Amino acid sequence: MVQVAIIGAAGYAGIEAVRLVLGHPRLHLTLATSGADAGKTIASVYPALTGATDLSFTAPDVDAIADAASVALLAVPHTAALDLVPALLERGVTVIDMSADYRLKDPLVYEAWYGAAHTSPELLGTAVFGLPELDRAGLSGAKLVACPGCYPTATTLAALPALQSGPAIGTRIVVDAKSGVTGAGRSVSAGSHYVNVNEAVAPYKVGCHRHTPEMEQALSVAAGRELSVIFTPHLVPMSRGLLSTVYVDVEDNFTTEEAVELYRGRYHKEPFVHVHDAGAMPSTAEVRGTNRASIGVVVDSRTNTLVAACAIDNLGKGAAGQAVQCLNAVLGYPETEGFDRPGPVV
Amino acid sequence: MVQVAIIGAAGYAGIEAVRLVLGHPRLHLTLATSGADAGKTIASVYPALTGATDLSFTAPDVDAIADAASVALLAVPHTAALDLVPALLERGVTVIDMSADYRLKDPLVYEAWYGAAHTSPELLGTAVFGLPELDRAGLSGAKLVACPGCYPTATTLAALPALQSGPAIGTRIVVDAKSGVTGAGRSVSAGSHYVNVNEAVAPYKVGCHRHTPEMEQALSVAAGRELSVIFTPHLVPMSRGLLSTVYVDVEDNFTTEEAVELYRGRYHKEPFVHVHDAGAMPSTAEVRGTNRASIGVVVDSRTNTLVAACAIDNLGKGAAGQAVQCLNAVLGYPETEGFDRPGPVV
Amino acid sequence: MVQVAIIGAAGYAGIEAVRLVLGHPRLHLTLATSGADAGKTIASVYPALTGATDLSFTAPDVDAIADAASVALLAVPHTAALDLVPALLERGVTVIDMSADYRLKDPLVYEAWYGAAHTSPELLGTAVFGLPELDRAGLSGAKLVACPGCYPTATTLAALPALQSGPAIGTRIVVDAKSGVTGAGRSVSAGSHYVNVNEAVAPYKVGCHRHTPEMEQALSVAAGRELSVIFTPHLVPMSRGLLSTVYVDVEDNFTTEEAVELYRGRYHKEPFVHVHDAGAMPSTAEVRGTNRASIGVVVDSRTNTLVAACAIDNLGKGAAGQAVQCLNAVLGYPETEGFDRPGPVV
Amino acid sequence: MVQVAIIGAAGYAGIEAVRLVLGHPRLHLTLATSGADAGKTIASVYPALTGATDLSFTAPDVDAIADAASVALLAVPHTAALDLVPALLERGVTVIDMSADYRLKDPLVYEAWYGAAHTSPELLGTAVFGLPELDRAGLSGAKLVACPGCYPTATTLAALPALQSGPAIGTRIVVDAKSGVTGAGRSVSAGSHYVNVNEAVAPYKVGCHRHTPEMEQALSVAAGRELSVIFTPHLVPMSRGLLSTVYVDVEDNFTTEEAVELYRGRYHKEPFVHVHDAGAMPSTAEVRGTNRASIGVVVDSRTNTLVAACAIDNLGKGAAGQAVQCLNAVLGYPETEGFDRPGPVV
Repeated sequence: MVQVAIIGAAGYAGIEAVRLVLGHPRLHLTLATSGADAGKTIASVYPALTGATDLSFTAPDVDAIADAASVALLAVPHTAALDLVPALLERGVTVIDMSADYRLKDPLVYEAWYGAAHTSPELLGTAVFGLPELDRAGLSGAKLVACPGCYPTATTLAALPALQSGPAIGTRIVVDAKSGVTGAGRSVSAGSHYVNVNEAVAPYKVGCHRHTPEMEQALSVAAGRELSVIFTPHLVPMSRGLLSTVYVDVEDNFTTEEAVELYRGRYHKEPFVHVHDAGAMPSTAEVRGTNRASIGVVVDSRTNTLVAACAIDNLGKGAAGQAVQCLNAVLGYPETEGFDRPGPVV
Repeated sequence: MVQVAIIGAAGYAGIEAVRLVLGHPRLHLTLATSGADAGKTIASVYPALTGATDLSFTAPDVDAIADAASVALLAVPHTAALDLVPALLERGVTVIDMSADYRLKDPLVYEAWYGAAHTSPELLGTAVFGLPELDRAGLSGAKLVACPGCYPTATTLAALPALQSGPAIGTRIVVDAKSGVTGAGRSVSAGSHYVNVNEAVAPYKVGCHRHTPEMEQALSVAAGRELSVIFTPHLVPMSRGLLSTVYVDVEDNFTTEEAVELYRGRYHKEPFVHVHDAGAMPSTAEVRGTNRASIGVVVDSRTNTLVAACAIDNLGKGAAGQAVQCLNAVLGYPETEGFDRPGPVV
Repeated sequence: MVQVAIIGAAGYAGIEAVRLVLGHPRLHLTLATSGADAGKTIASVYPALTGATDLSFTAPDVDAIADAASVALLAVPHTAALDLVPALLERGVTVIDMSADYRLKDPLVYEAWYGAAHTSPELLGTAVFGLPELDRAGLSGAKLVACPGCYPTATTLAALPALQSGPAIGTRIVVDAKSGVTGAGRSVSAGSHYVNVNEAVAPYKVGCHRHTPEMEQALSVAAGRELSVIFTPHLVPMSRGLLSTVYVDVEDNFTTEEAVELYRGRYHKEPFVHVHDAGAMPSTAEVRGTNRASIGVVVDSRTNTLVAACAIDNLGKGAAGQAVQCLNAVLGYPETEGFDRPGPVV
Repeated sequence: MVQVAIIGAAGYAGIEAVRLVLGHPRLHLTLATSGADAGKTIASVYPALTGATDLSFTAPDVDAIADAASVALLAVPHTAALDLVPALLERGVTVIDMSADYRLKDPLVYEAWYGAAHTSPELLGTAVFGLPELDRAGLSGAKLVACPGCYPTATTLAALPALQSGPAIGTRIVVDAKSGVTGAGRSVSAGSHYVNVNEAVAPYKVGCHRHTPEMEQALSVAAGRELSVIFTPHLVPMSRGLLSTVYVDVEDNFTTEEAVELYRGRYHKEPFVHVHDAGAMPSTAEVRGTNRASIGVVVDSRTNTLVAACAIDNLGKGAAGQAVQCLNAVLGYPETEGFDRPGPVV
């Protein structure tokens, strides 16, 4: 059993990581930190975990983490990982980082979008981007994995086959995404008040959401050329789930059937990716509580536009599920280890 | 008082029309037809209207309609209006048609998208397209008004200023829209079962939704050139509300501030259209239960893309509200007549 | 036009009062106060009111209120009205108080449940309890009306006919009620976070909710004898709506049909109360956005228990609607004035 | 591995049983029947099970079931089990029945409430009532287990300790319960249409719900005397979850603290039952997707009423979870087998 600590464990991504690690046959949760909830039992804060663990949240401390665990899963806000990661690596702890801090390869891009200087740019080169379906080569034995955000994960999976060896032309991709409220975090605000979310759909941070450069980086890697993204996230009234709808210009005469074949060829060995039949589109309901991604693709021949939609659980494949999948790869386990039980059906 | 009949009154758009006519100071509801609910009191089918009317639904009959009313509001499925409209016009009844049957000017386009021959193409030229903000010239005294669908209404309002005298370039517009479940109608199906809608977002009819040619027609009129639309509607878990997010290529160096100014210039006399300040975007919650449209616009200077989002109530400005607004214009009343009470705030 | 000020206007009950006063033909909103939102336009805080009013919230000040209005509607937390009411009455302002401060006739009961001494007990005798269906005698010309809370309103209406001249026996009534989230107010907290409310039902304040003595007072008045109430409120995942289900012991051989007849006899002149046919029960959906109460009643002959359920909109008949109904009565207008437009149907 | 067939597998309780059996280390799903969906793959009907099973639904046939499995889990409507159960028992198949057909010990009570004669009353004596927390004595090796319904499960668990050796007096218990929509089944109807469920709470089948005699039977067994129940179920806008709030008359001077102690004493060895601290009440959110029951108890000393609320997942402890728990007991496994992974946290 590998000893695992989860840092920032009381947030939504953190507690989902707690749940997954508790249910994983080869991982043992030894530490769960939370600044705000330190001292409380996990089960008192999340009654759904009653009986599943007796652990209490503790205040974050790098030495305590290194004493307790060989792997740390970080579910902290951006910039918070800048302090933690070097200290943990120095102490020999493998880091699976769900924060944004080590995703972007260019520290200037980081600074431009996050408004903070990157304090350990020397690690950016060695950090492995944690999207196994894009590139799993570096994951085995990695010391630092930077898992992509929820929007970049769904968006990259939606566009990847079209870009990589496919019919995509042009340099601009429209990404219109819809997320449940857990994506906005556990902190209370007018924006997360039930009455404001219920019966409401609205876009936010149009053209300026911080996941934009991350998508551009991943999609450009996939395409082998520089791409730009125009990204509009929307908040929809549900707790979990994320759907990214992407619009890619394609060559003349490319068909939906060819697109489905292309996508299935690209993903047929991927245990967590499902490609729907031509004409069918995914719903976030299919993937709730799981690490799976479900994709539908249509080519609009009237406009030579490929429309692909990818549904994930923002806390699963969009966060904690992906982190555990990456950790499996790092440790040399099957990536599916710990994901053998079906998620909720309704 | 003008005598009004509502045809197809037991569906969601129909019953919203009932509600609006009942609350209108110059309209008198004399007849409400429903094939399925004929014989039942309106209040027994919709208890929310208890005390508001003693009428019962009756089976649709053109002579009875002509006897009872000088104006008929049609809330019937496509092709059903093909039979009704000529018969009603012949009997001197003014028709405000919420169905799709008289919206498209080209009968071949109708046939291609609706799979049925148009049986009264001679009326298409005289039918006035019922989107006053696009063109209200023909509405006064019109005998047949074809109100646009919910998606074309929100989409046209979102894109109109950019296209009409604005910075739009290119010939293709991406339209990504999100609708509540009343948009799918009152009939029961797996798709409208609470358990399937709740906690789920999904696209449907990608590239093949019948509102597409209607959008292309309206946007091409606005732009003065042929435009094509790639349209992806999504179902979101809420009862009412529709948001259309449109992506329009614009010239270099066009800014968000210029866009807001352009939109406000275009709409400042429109009583039902609100344009948000730069940086703010609309929520469907703002317009619930009203005939208003709320618009936000951002220019992404990185990609020269104008992103505009328009929120409407799909049953209000997207259907019955617009029909009553058009009827006001037809009758020479202020368009705002009957819309003076604020809608629900939460 | 009567000049009206609304105090605490930025909360949910307050803003619903704003909406109702704006739509009322004989009332004119001259002032809307909010400590927290002072200086902001109403429409900027509640975009749904865009176009409906140009007023801004102002800080509460009794002289300013008295200058601006002859009537003040108070939507303030308990104890806040203790300061305001005497000062407003002194300045000749008629007060319709939605707070809890003047509802209970016995200041010791107030102190026991609210944990604060009542500082103007001399006003308790003259304050008229604002539930017209229980007793409208004192409303005409009243200077101070204390409107009941949302739970007491629905509960009293549900039990009144059975208690007043009916078959009720015993001295204890079980009240099990379910409320939407606006009932918990606009302030942000873990309890109002979308993710905690969604897909969750839970009781709260079991046996200790402050509306309990108010129910006991009203029901005892109705019954003409001392009654006690065991009250369990529940939070359900919806924005608006409240259902109170009451269980009353009745004499042998009393039937559902007799109960329906009794209830209809009691309420047939009440414009806002609807009694369902035997066998039918109300839904909160019927009364959303209105001042109406919808009641169903069943007698379980196996156990000699009358079960009555009353559905109201907690912000309508449960708060602002009732306040405006009472104000109509105070001013000598028909109680239905301003409520002539049907509410939302779906 | 024990071979298991699930009958009526395409309904909500059936598919939850499929999910649980697929995730159980000692059970092997060999057959899943559905009359309506026969021939379709399970994953095509429930995309959430993509990758979890390649089985297709088959038409129900007792010989095929007996060939494929030694245990059958029945998730069929009442009366449908009357035909199946004798035929399956005759073929040596152990039956865990989630239908209502073998729960009531008295065939006349069955006939009175279900309007159908019981055709195998001789089996009622041997059928073991499948609520292990009430009595697990007969479960080991049982051939026919009749699992209680969702409402009786939550209600019995809520009231059991108070009745069994506790302070309860009187003979009548008020049960006010709230259920999510999966409780009403997968078939489409106006009652399950999203628009009718959303933002609505309503009671149904007041005083005549078929779970009533089942509760009375179980509670009378617990109390050792005849009890009657007045039962009001409510539908609330959520997919899963059930809360039963029960009101029990108790002796003078019994306190909340004593009640909590009593409940904890009774349930401390039960792996699936959690009793909250004094003052805390359960939410259905705590038990979503699990087989757990979460209970809170308060004594209202003003009225000598014990109020207990029990939250379960209606498809978990209220149906399929309980069936698998019972099957574990029948087979001699730990009752917790297959339930070791935590359910969803948010």
